[in-house]
Amino acid sequence: MRAVDIIIKKRRGEALSKEEINFFIDGFVNGSIPDYQASAFLMAVCCNGMDSWETVDLTLAMVNSGEKVDLSRIKGIKADKHSTGGVGDTTTLIVAPLVAACGVLVAKMSGRGLGHTGGTLDKLESIPGFRTNLTMEEFINSVQTAGLAVIGQSKDLVPADKLLYALRDVTGTVDSIPLIASSIMSKKIAAGSDAIVLDVKSGSGAFLQSLDDSFALADAMVKIGVRAGKRIMAVITDMDQPLGMAIGNALEVKEAIEVLKNKQSGPLKEVSLYLAANMLLMAKACTTLEKGLAIAGKALESGKGLAKLGDMIRSQGGLEEVLDNTDLLPKAKHIIPVKTDKDGYVSSIDTREIGICSLLTGAGRSRKEDEIDPAAGLVMQKRVGDKVQKGDTLAVLHTNKSDIIDEVSNLLRNAFHIKPEKPKLRPLVLGTVTKDRIQKFV
Amino acid sequence: MRAVDIIIKKRRGEALSKEEINFFIDGFVNGSIPDYQASAFLMAVCCNGMDSWETVDLTLAMVNSGEKVDLSRIKGIKADKHSTGGVGDTTTLIVAPLVAACGVLVAKMSGRGLGHTGGTLDKLESIPGFRTNLTMEEFINSVQTAGLAVIGQSKDLVPADKLLYALRDVTGTVDSIPLIASSIMSKKIAAGSDAIVLDVKSGSGAFLQSLDDSFALADAMVKIGVRAGKRIMAVITDMDQPLGMAIGNALEVKEAIEVLKNKQSGPLKEVSLYLAANMLLMAKACTTLEKGLAIAGKALESGKGLAKLGDMIRSQGGLEEVLDNTDLLPKAKHIIPVKTDKDGYVSSIDTREIGICSLLTGAGRSRKEDEIDPAAGLVMQKRVGDKVQKGDTLAVLHTNKSDIIDEVSNLLRNAFHIKPEKPKLRPLVLGTVTKDRIQKFV
Repeated sequence: MRAVDIIIKKRRGEALSKEEINFFIDGFVNGSIPDYQASAFLMAVCCNGMDSWETVDLTLAMVNSGEKVDLSRIKGIKADKHSTGGVGDTTTLIVAPLVAACGVLVAKMSGRGLGHTGGTLDKLESIPGFRTNLTMEEFINSVQTAGLAVIGQSKDLVPADKLLYALRDVTGTVDSIPLIASSIMSKKIAAGSDAIVLDVKSGSGAFLQSLDDSFALADAMVKIGVRAGKRIMAVITDMDQPLGMAIGNALEVKEAIEVLKNKQSGPLKEVSLYLAANMLLMAKACTTLEKGLAIAGKALESGKGLAKLGDMIRSQGGLEEVLDNTDLLPKAKHIIPVKTDKDGYVSSIDTREIGICSLLTGAGRSRKEDEIDPAAGLVMQKRVGDKVQKGDTLAVLHTNKSDIIDEVSNLLRNAFHIKPEKPKLRPLVLGTVTKDRIQKFV
Repeated sequence: MRAVDIIIKKRRGEALSKEEINFFIDGFVNGSIPDYQASAFLMAVCCNGMDSWETVDLTLAMVNSGEKVDLSRIKGIKADKHSTGGVGDTTTLIVAPLVAACGVLVAKMSGRGLGHTGGTLDKLESIPGFRTNLTMEEFINSVQTAGLAVIGQSKDLVPADKLLYALRDVTGTVDSIPLIASSIMSKKIAAGSDAIVLDVKSGSGAFLQSLDDSFALADAMVKIGVRAGKRIMAVITDMDQPLGMAIGNALEVKEAIEVLKNKQSGPLKEVSLYLAANMLLMAKACTTLEKGLAIAGKALESGKGLAKLGDMIRSQGGLEEVLDNTDLLPKAKHIIPVKTDKDGYVSSIDTREIGICSLLTGAGRSRKEDEIDPAAGLVMQKRVGDKVQKGDTLAVLHTNKSDIIDEVSNLLRNAFHIKPEKPKLRPLVLGTVTKDRIQKFV
């Protein structure tokens, strides 16, 4: 078998065999297939696609490139969730405790923020003392004793993905559905959970802006999960505006606590309950979505979800007292309201731009190696559909960098589009994909 | 400007600007754009194509990557020809002397054989003493005094093509019309001639087997030449069987001499006269193709073409006496007839396989660094359409390697397909492409 023949086959749009895909991924990881052949291969995949069998084979070849987490010592069904990334997307901090409070163990590996999107690890680390770099032993213990744990991805998991992603990033081969699906799913499969709920974001703040692409990605990922023996489904949710009001690490932790205290309603709570219910369903903790929603809702209202978040924080070395006193979270020096000079309705929000504003306050990273400021970010005061008058505050900036305030205030103001007419809102949950069925709600 | 953005643009199927193409080629040649980005770019071009403006810009960016031959010291129109490569394609050795005999200077850079195809340099070097590595000074002198010269391509010409070709070869990005056209034309333009005739081979022995692809390549190359200010046209000729009867270096020189002595008729002579006539037309040495054919035919019949070949051989240090006594050319130890065991007609010939047989006798190269045996090769005794009887000789092997005779005899026998019915023959010249018109003769 020769790498060049495999590239030519994919260039011609033919389907590759499992053996060919394994040969290519193994060769790339062990260095016998150089970067320049891998990048030609990736571009051929971008241009000609992969069918669902090839995508499964690619994913499993990637899984097999490294170690796999063995959660078999933990009894029962372990559940996981994954979001494709958004702005103000604080669901993990709410969903994981709710699901754990309902008796389903959550063993989750999360990522860090990059570009306009945030990352769960960064958010958790804004809690004083919280450790995300647990050893595998500590991780398993934490899941067993607290019922849930969230850590960073081990370096030995899916090395093929790290190598491929670095190459895709510089060769214009990032946005390809089989490549995105295999990248995400290889990590989910290697992470060892049995039941998985995928949250595929769609809209101006998501990687995939079109609804069709979002459904196609969800479908590709669910197919991979099913073939790998997982109980899996995907929810397609709106990312045409930030999900929560807070964007920034400590600010999002504070908002998650408010939701778990049942002090805040709205989209973040609604999507969190929907994801939690689906996780319970996938983990066989309930028989219907309606029952899942009821159980999850009860866990929220009773304060059991909040208590589980406390268990996790304590178990991972964090200051549990933040739950009672969110003033213990880091705070920014400058807190600046950004006001509108227009009358009308918020017709749309450039969500990507809101993410960039948060990044510029210090809350995010342009490059992987950048440091973040846990206190920084912004809190929106208005959402799409809200009526505004000249002088109303659109959002409040939190930052320790006095020199960026004017620039970011302007960017932020311009990210809110204000028009005379009240806009139509689309539903928060745009559809679901299960192994048997694609449901579109719009 | 960033390389990755240019790759993404081409991946989306958009047309690149001249500035973007120049940036990419310059960056690749100077090393600031790595191989892995270049190979992703090449694959995007293979999948999404390039329009004729982009192809011209790519070609000129490649020309500008290195030195250009300055033939301005030589007065008058300098003519060149190029064949896309075939088997038994000995036309240069006949066409160049005929054109020079008609008063048009021929300054030609040629290549070496690789794989199943032969190369003019190898053929000429089978003449004892013949030098193809003239200095530029010697080359220009030779054109001025002998009227023609054929040398190898200078190392400083079109470095972008050498780098790109090496990468295309290993990344499955060879057979793309804009990439083939720009590779050929960049070298033709850098070589400095004013009038160019392209011989695009089509069929089982050619790189492009389909007629549509051959016309598309011819059209792309002619468009590039016209935009670069050249007088240019292309002839699409049949390569469904070897053009001459001889395949192998000294064997082909001998056949060319026979043609120039007017002792051999057939396809090689016919195509050579057609190419020569078009070169005369492009060089304004005649006003119509018919007149060109008449002038070229006269140069052949009068022996002036043969004399010009003699002038070139002498001028480039070769043994001119081979013209009178072809026994002075290298000869193989083993001369083995390969016979058929069937009755019928030769219905088709696997021309690529014939080229491989010649390679296996020692006449060709599998890899660039292989040595060749100038004496080796084969001489066909039958062509497509010929009637054969059991025991008839199909071809005669010439080789110094006794161990390959059985294997190659079998391969050769199988490359001649014999059927009861007489096959239909297609014309030798399948069409022409000029700046104004595409003419298809089939």
